[in-house]
Parts: sequence; C-alpha cells; structure tokens
Amino acid sequence: MKEDRIYNFNAGPAALPLEVLEEIKDSFLNFDGSGMSIAEISHRSGWFNNVINDAIARTRRLLNLDDEFHVLFIQGGASMQFCMIPMNLLREGDTADYVNTGTWSAKAIKEAEIQGNTIDVVASSEDKNFSYIPKNISFNSNAAYAHITSNNTIKGTQWASYPEIDGVPLIADMSSDIMCRPFDIDQFGLVYAGAQKNIGPAGVCMVIIRDDMLKRVPDMLPSMLKYTTYASKNSMYNTPPCFAIYTVQLVMKWLEETIGGLEKMAEINLNKAKILYETIDSSDFYKGTAQPDSRSLMNVTFRLPDEELEKRFVEQAMESGFGGLKGHRSVGGCRASIYNATPVTAIEALTDFMKNFEQKNG
Amino acid sequence: MKEDRIYNFNAGPAALPLEVLEEIKDSFLNFDGSGMSIAEISHRSGWFNNVINDAIARTRRLLNLDDEFHVLFIQGGASMQFCMIPMNLLREGDTADYVNTGTWSAKAIKEAEIQGNTIDVVASSEDKNFSYIPKNISFNSNAAYAHITSNNTIKGTQWASYPEIDGVPLIADMSSDIMCRPFDIDQFGLVYAGAQKNIGPAGVCMVIIRDDMLKRVPDMLPSMLKYTTYASKNSMYNTPPCFAIYTVQLVMKWLEETIGGLEKMAEINLNKAKILYETIDSSDFYKGTAQPDSRSLMNVTFRLPDEELEKRFVEQAMESGFGGLKGHRSVGGCRASIYNATPVTAIEALTDFMKNFEQKNG
Repeated sequence: MKEDRIYNFNAGPAALPLEVLEEIKDSFLNFDGSGMSIAEISHRSGWFNNVINDAIARTRRLLNLDDEFHVLFIQGGASMQFCMIPMNLLREGDTADYVNTGTWSAKAIKEAEIQGNTIDVVASSEDKNFSYIPKNISFNSNAAYAHITSNNTIKGTQWASYPEIDGVPLIADMSSDIMCRPFDIDQFGLVYAGAQKNIGPAGVCMVIIRDDMLKRVPDMLPSMLKYTTYASKNSMYNTPPCFAIYTVQLVMKWLEETIGGLEKMAEINLNKAKILYETIDSSDFYKGTAQPDSRSLMNVTFRLPDEELEKRFVEQAMESGFGGLKGHRSVGGCRASIYNATPVTAIEALTDFMKNFEQKNG
Repeated sequence: MKEDRIYNFNAGPAALPLEVLEEIKDSFLNFDGSGMSIAEISHRSGWFNNVINDAIARTRRLLNLDDEFHVLFIQGGASMQFCMIPMNLLREGDTADYVNTGTWSAKAIKEAEIQGNTIDVVASSEDKNFSYIPKNISFNSNAAYAHITSNNTIKGTQWASYPEIDGVPLIADMSSDIMCRPFDIDQFGLVYAGAQKNIGPAGVCMVIIRDDMLKRVPDMLPSMLKYTTYASKNSMYNTPPCFAIYTVQLVMKWLEETIGGLEKMAEINLNKAKILYETIDSSDFYKGTAQPDSRSLMNVTFRLPDEELEKRFVEQAMESGFGGLKGHRSVGGCRASIYNATPVTAIEALTDFMKNFEQKNG
C-alpha cells in the first residue's frame, strides 16, 4: 500500500477515498489560491460558499432530488438527529412508528420517548438477536412519520428495499449506507446520515428534508435545534463544520466523477459484498451472522469457530495490514466494513488472507 | 510568505499556527504510524484516545484546572451552548443574570428566553453602540448563574478583568479570547469557546464545567443535550468531531511547547495589540471604535474617514496579501482580528501598510 497505508475495514470513522485524502493534503496550506488553509477560511467567503454549494449540488444530482428537498449540514451526528426529529416533527397528540433493528434504532426510540412522545414500535427483530430485517410490517396510517435504520452497522443487516406506507412520510437513519446505491427519495420525509461512514469524516451529519416537514417545526425551539434555521440559512446560521463539509464535497465529487454515480457505485458494492459473502459461505470455518436476505452490503459480520480463533484472526490480520476487523464491542465476533471507499482490491486481499488463515487454523 | 500564504486577519474561522497546519499536512495520509488518516481512524482506537486525552491534559495544564473541572468537546459551536446552558442549569423557578455587550450576548439571552426562562439583563452597553464593557454591575445574589461574553468579536471590546459575584457561578462565552491570557477559573461554573477563533478549526466547542454544575442537569433531557453525557463518556458518547479535536490538541501543544504557556502568550498578545492601537492612536486618519479601557486584544476595530476609503483600504490590503480586514457585515468599518496564531510580524507588516495607505490617501 502507498505510504504504508493499511487496508481499512473500520466501521466508522472509516476509509475515505485515497484521492480525496490526497487532494486535502495537497491543498492544506493554500486552499484554492486563497493563501489560507481550508481550516482557516471564513465561512462567509466566496471560497467556502463554493464548497458548500457544490457539496449540495452534487448531492442533489447523485440522489435525484427535486426542489421539494433541502440538503442540510448539522453537527452532532445521527445521535443529535435522534432527538431533533421528534422535537421538530411531532406535535401535541402525534404518534410515530419506529422499527427496531438494533442498537441505533433503540437509541432513536429512547431519545423520542424521553421527550414524552408516544412511540409505537411496530416491528422488531430483537427475537432473533437483530439478525434480520422485519417484513410485512403493519404501520399506523395516522402516524406522523415512520422511522427506520436503513443499515445496522453492528449486526450487519440492511433493508434490501424500503416499505411503502400510504400517506405516512418515511424517515431513515442512513448513516452507514447513504450513497451506497440509488434509492427513490419520493416517499421519504427526511433522511439523515452521520458522514463518518460513507460520505466523509466525523463532525457533520447530512440531513435531507422535504419542504412540507419544515412546516411542522414549532416556533419556540432553540435556533440550533430547528430544521428551519438550517434550511433558511443554507446551514450557515452559525459557523458550520467547514473541514468536514469540504471533505463531504470531495467525496461527492469522487462519487460523480471517478465512480460515475450511484448506479455504478451499487454495482461495485454488490460485487465487493458478493466476493466476501461467497468466501464465508463456501467455508465451514467462517459463518455469517445475518440472515442471507437481510445481509448488509456495507458491514459483513461473521464468526470463527471460537473466540480464541477470532482473537488470533483479528491480530494476525492487523499484522498483515488489515485494520478494523474486530466486531463491535457489544457483540464480539468479526466484521469487515466495506463502505464505498473500500476498493475491490482490498476485499480480494482480505479474502486471500481469510482463506490462508483457514488453511492454517481450520 | 511561505507557499503564497496571506496574512490572515479573519475573525473566525481564523489563522492557525503554521506549524500546526504543517504537522496535519505531513501526517494526513498516515497518522502516527496507523496507516490511516486522522479522518479515517476509529474514535475507539488507542490512537484517538491519545489525541483527546492529550488535548484535555494540555488544556488542564494551560488553565491550571483542578479535578473539580471537566473539559468537554461538544458540537454545534457556541450557539449550541446558548441553548444548552439554560436547558441544563436552570431549574423550575430559577433566574439567571446576563450582561449584554453585543450580538453574541443578545443571542445567548434570546436562546435562554425562548425556553421560557426568566432572564435579568443586569447591564448593557447598547446605549453607546456596545463600544464599552459595563462597570459596577449589580448582579442578583440569588441568580442561578451570571453570563458574560468575555470578548466581543464584532465591536472589538473585551473584559479586562472578570466581575466577582459572591456565591453566583460565572459563565463566560470565551469563543474569541480563550487562551489569549491566563485567568483564574475558580469563580467560573462554566466556560465555553467555539474553537474556530483561538484554539482550532470550526466544528467543535470546548466546554469547561465545574463538577457541582453537573448536579443540576435534569434527567429527562435528550442525551446529546446533557452535559452529564459528555462528562461521563469523555466526550465520546457518540462519534466526536475527531479532526477538529486533533487540531485543538496540536494548538494546545503549540501553546505549551512553542509559545511556553499563557503568561508568554499574553505578553505576545499585549505587544501585538499595542503596536496596532498605537498606529491607530497616533493618526488622525484611523479611528478606533471601542473605548480605550474596553479595547480587545483580539479584535481591533477601526474606521477610516469615509466608507469609500474603507472600501479601498480593504481592497488594496487584500491585493497586498492582508486578508479579512473588512468589519463585520452588521457594523461595517475595518477590523483586524489578531488571535494567538497571528504572529507579530503580521502586525508589523500591517501597520507598515496602514501608514503607507494613510500617506497616499490621508
């Protein structure tokens, strides 16, 4: 690997495209001829305006967003959205549906309930240790919204397609799979994604919100907690996280210009996941933990015959230049996070390593 | 200037020490031997733990903080603190004192009042266009806290010393002057500072909070809005803004190791401000806008004989490599922000330019 870089399979913060990192590095003392670092320029300058507007324009093109949708950049990660969503969108007497597919869904539910809201958990996969995405869910037709987590980073599950609910706006936490494939935004009222997995560094959350949702926002909320503040000020009511937004811009540029859009990205991701899952499925040594029809394209979770072997696997992988293969501390096992920025060559190198490890230890 | 860098007098985001920028650049593809960029490493890794813990340890040493104080990193800038402070620290029936020294104080007051709190604005310098810091203020002895803005970036005023109030914890927004000089933390219950002026890039706010203040935090607040969440999880309840915290760490290291601490920093800042104010005071062409005893060491605001000349001054300065000299859009005029990272050589070059401009246009 170039400059002694490792194969980065971290779950988030995660790998970024090498050419994005190189562009940041090369321009770091003098951004776009400004004579200043991107970390030093005023957010009110033409330089930064170009950055944020280009990030938004590229997001719009990549996701086919029409004027009904606003693209916002908000601090605090997805966790801040867990509280902002009910705070902004639930009014007196409203209820909301949530689907519980694991840790992040559970946190979203908790932060809504702590504010005194009535939440209906309409489906959960807790009965089978969150190893699947529930099907045939009965959503409430009078819910203010229905909330799902599109990809479960920890358990390695992902919605293959999104539920259609008549008249109820869908809200999705897409932190770990936004931009991994095209999707139809039309039924969504709001989509959010902490950047640090698929679209940038930690420190900014992308929020895509439909115009009619903004009309629900109560007047008396603090400014920084209102979606309308961000929508009316192009996310610059106060100083935005400039470096993080700049990196998101470069990732969007990479997606458009190097990858060629989300159809192409999806092809690449499907192929990457296929190579890895086939390696797992063709072996008796490795065992996938998610149910096959609920498997994630982004986080591939698997076990080895015992914990001792898992420990050795992670250690030897690290020594061989594969980082981040340890499963989430809450569940153990192994996990390879293979977000957009992970190249197929990294997957091929990993599967070679896995086969080799199996031969020696199987 | 090296690499065609300009003299950066921006008000924020603002100049960072060149050696900090160079260290970030040099390690950007491979941080500390990790084989990953700082923008790619897990916040749960030893690498990032070292970063955040070193940033905190250096902050503690620089400000002489004992164990009573917690150093937190929170997203959303000072503007998020405007709402979090009353949300966390005012209980049913409590009132708080605020001093209004301009735009930022007014916003802090607004965000407290919008939550239904009773605020007493115990002093204001609005009568003289915020050109001074009020003296001999009668604070309420039963207030839950007293809030001040230590430096007014827009009007160029700064508290020379802090009021002492028996039994009432002082809270200060030090976004634009933290670490510019030593100060006695003992009477403070909470100090906060958006990083993007004196201690880092945009995207993180440093909050220093005394232990007894944490006991006031209501249980039923959303997790991301509670100080206790950050204090109990070393600011890593969720993914923190890693790059911004890393940059803060490097600025703290620069303050300790290159500058030699806050006494030294204060000497340098006093000298820088003296050179600039003397240039203004010795001329009939330039006119300072803040009252002399309330002048800021960080933001030097001044006018020229007319707006046409001010426009020309800012333009010609830019052409000569001096950026950011335009006053805040809300007040006009000129402003040189001379935070910690602005070297005395930049001030000397600027005063040479000012004298030259006066000769040609005076």
